[in-house]
Amino acid sequence: MELLPKEQIAFQRFLDTIRRGYERFGFLPIETPVFERLDVLLTKSGGETEKQVYFVQSTGAKAQGKEAELALRFDLTVPLARYVAQHEGHLVFPFRRYQIQRVYRGERAQRGRFREFYQCDIDVIGKDTLPIAYDAEMPAVIASVFRELQVGAFTINLNNRKMLSGLFESYGLTQPERQAAALREIDKLAKVGKDKVLEALHGPDVGLASDEANRLLAALSLTGSNAEILAALRAIPDTSALFKEGVDELQAVVDGLKAMQVPEENFRLNPTIARGLDYYTGTVYETFLNDFPELGSVCSGGRYGSLADNYTRSKLPGVGISIGATRLFFQLREAGIIKADRSISQALVTQLDPSLGHEYLGIASLLRTAGINTEVYTEGGKFAKQLKYADRAGIRFAVLMGSDEHARGTVTVKDLLKGAQHEVPRGELVTRLQALLLDDGV
Amino acid sequence: MELLPKEQIAFQRFLDTIRRGYERFGFLPIETPVFERLDVLLTKSGGETEKQVYFVQSTGAKAQGKEAELALRFDLTVPLARYVAQHEGHLVFPFRRYQIQRVYRGERAQRGRFREFYQCDIDVIGKDTLPIAYDAEMPAVIASVFRELQVGAFTINLNNRKMLSGLFESYGLTQPERQAAALREIDKLAKVGKDKVLEALHGPDVGLASDEANRLLAALSLTGSNAEILAALRAIPDTSALFKEGVDELQAVVDGLKAMQVPEENFRLNPTIARGLDYYTGTVYETFLNDFPELGSVCSGGRYGSLADNYTRSKLPGVGISIGATRLFFQLREAGIIKADRSISQALVTQLDPSLGHEYLGIASLLRTAGINTEVYTEGGKFAKQLKYADRAGIRFAVLMGSDEHARGTVTVKDLLKGAQHEVPRGELVTRLQALLLDDGV
Repeated sequence: MELLPKEQIAFQRFLDTIRRGYERFGFLPIETPVFERLDVLLTKSGGETEKQVYFVQSTGAKAQGKEAELALRFDLTVPLARYVAQHEGHLVFPFRRYQIQRVYRGERAQRGRFREFYQCDIDVIGKDTLPIAYDAEMPAVIASVFRELQVGAFTINLNNRKMLSGLFESYGLTQPERQAAALREIDKLAKVGKDKVLEALHGPDVGLASDEANRLLAALSLTGSNAEILAALRAIPDTSALFKEGVDELQAVVDGLKAMQVPEENFRLNPTIARGLDYYTGTVYETFLNDFPELGSVCSGGRYGSLADNYTRSKLPGVGISIGATRLFFQLREAGIIKADRSISQALVTQLDPSLGHEYLGIASLLRTAGINTEVYTEGGKFAKQLKYADRAGIRFAVLMGSDEHARGTVTVKDLLKGAQHEVPRGELVTRLQALLLDDGV
Repeated sequence: MELLPKEQIAFQRFLDTIRRGYERFGFLPIETPVFERLDVLLTKSGGETEKQVYFVQSTGAKAQGKEAELALRFDLTVPLARYVAQHEGHLVFPFRRYQIQRVYRGERAQRGRFREFYQCDIDVIGKDTLPIAYDAEMPAVIASVFRELQVGAFTINLNNRKMLSGLFESYGLTQPERQAAALREIDKLAKVGKDKVLEALHGPDVGLASDEANRLLAALSLTGSNAEILAALRAIPDTSALFKEGVDELQAVVDGLKAMQVPEENFRLNPTIARGLDYYTGTVYETFLNDFPELGSVCSGGRYGSLADNYTRSKLPGVGISIGATRLFFQLREAGIIKADRSISQALVTQLDPSLGHEYLGIASLLRTAGINTEVYTEGGKFAKQLKYADRAGIRFAVLMGSDEHARGTVTVKDLLKGAQHEVPRGELVTRLQALLLDDGV
């Protein structure tokens, strides 16, 4: 994961858009150190992840025969839990934070897998309780960010773990291990298809009777508008209080999204989304790009019962969602959705007459003071070469002043995109270029 | 180094200002992975630094008995050298890059020392040659950034290593080790005073005759305007070609800075600045805050002969400068120069009447669409409590709509800073709030 400058510029814009979107909803930034305690990270990671934790030690400490105590964060959730517990007395709850940082996993480098990648998380953490309104805010933020990222059509899938658990119960599936097994199978529905899942639900790990497995799957396979799915869920007979609570929460999320004017095409209830096993306790989210379903969920999250039981006695329920920005950026670049053809510079001051070198520097300063990112072609040389440089670098406007223009008190702005050329009095250069840049959509 | 949200907001603004300043001059962003090869970092670091290198290994690789091969970067120069050599064929030279990332040093945590801190570097790398014009651009960028950071009065000190070496030569100081020893002593001038330095120059390591030591120190102690110092340097008799080359370069830097309209109060020639021993070959920079000399140089750099001899046969001369942002931010916070009293949110939509909850969400969406960072006080409760929250969080504007206002089709904007209150028709809320925010100077 190392980008050439034009790619880095595009990636930087991508991250900035996400950040601006998070800030628009009033989320507060935090950054945590790259190091967390090794023992904590090893406890929190499981299975394959455990081997992927990078431990860290200074060469000096190693030389003294000390044991490594630190490791690199592998997600932003463990650091958030530690942060909230550590600074609890100084934070205002509900604590709404965003965090955009790299995380580290010792994976074998391969296509689409990174040892180091950006995550962009938002979470709201309550103290003791957290209103369901925040469960609606998460997808509202994501819908706003994805629209600004111009990723094309997307759908945020919504479900609720209480609804799922309640449904399981009404088919006699009460043991946690069996529920967990059922969730695992249902999670595969989109991948393996109805028949395989039905077979597994009927199999020994879940153990539903064939008829109940059928009815469960029918309930989970509901389609239609959000209102239709909600109505169909409410029409299921003999459901539990937990199920009803889950459906009410889904209703509240849908209503909240409408009140926040999120277009209905951007979110839909999908009873099959289960999202992991233990962590989430209520609403869950997965986000798909309509034209690229093969990418899987590009933004996921959900509601959890307590963030930081390991660190504090306070009950800290939360809801959060995360964009894996590095992976998503590479996918969108490959799909041609994101372009990388722009420089940082908006104008290149060319050097037509070496004796005017200091004048060119003055013009550049003028443009910069007006907020225009400006470069000077310091080397001079053939004009065609200077224009070629601007073109290759992705700089749209070249500013030129030969001895003729200098005598006339003018400069010429050359629009390399449109091929147009404008000679303007020097005093009007700034306003003229600003007007041209407005049209540039930057 | 872990900040509470308000501090983080201020720090984020600080970094954004630096980044915007770098981009205004057309520098291109790069980011490099946190890992570099351990053997390279250990070669490049020396003495104390070597013990401070953090090596890294995945727990899985350690379990297999492998040796650590990776380490965390301890500066941005080694990664830049590796980057330029690795991507040489894809870069346009002179390559102007900025890089704002954290670096890592295994130091004992103490006040003002950080194990993990941000560096904000700019460098221009030429192929075979690099015009002296870039040596003037560095301080022009820094002057622009420091003005925008509003750090108060500052002075960028300029010197030239060729001028210094040439001067040494003319006093018979030709051996590199003796020159190095002399540079070390001169570097201490501001700290230990003239007499101590004179003594050391006369001592065994440098070995200047008393009279020559006196004349050397007199030449280095020149004060006055930049033009006066340049004239005085040129007036020194019997100087070498190297000395004259150095003075010409200093002249070019001063002339370039004037052409770029950098105020003369922001830069001054200071012949005593030596800046390390081996690395720099021409111009060197150190930056001081006039009111806080005790902070030492807060931004340093210089010209070097070749960036990446270890990696490539190409000769890559460069010039660069670096802001240690974490340390500087903490110093400016302690000195009270930077405030940390603002939220990310510009407006808080309060909840006066729970039955209007969805209306409040709609108002918030409207404001966000207009680009205003907006939060909704979802919990409701007493109005005074909601205002207190806005005040503590640093949100200046509260938006309120009770049932009366709702009936009248209006909303009220409360300016918590000025204590003023404006009732406006709902359709005019956005433009009114935008006008009030303009006045907010954000």
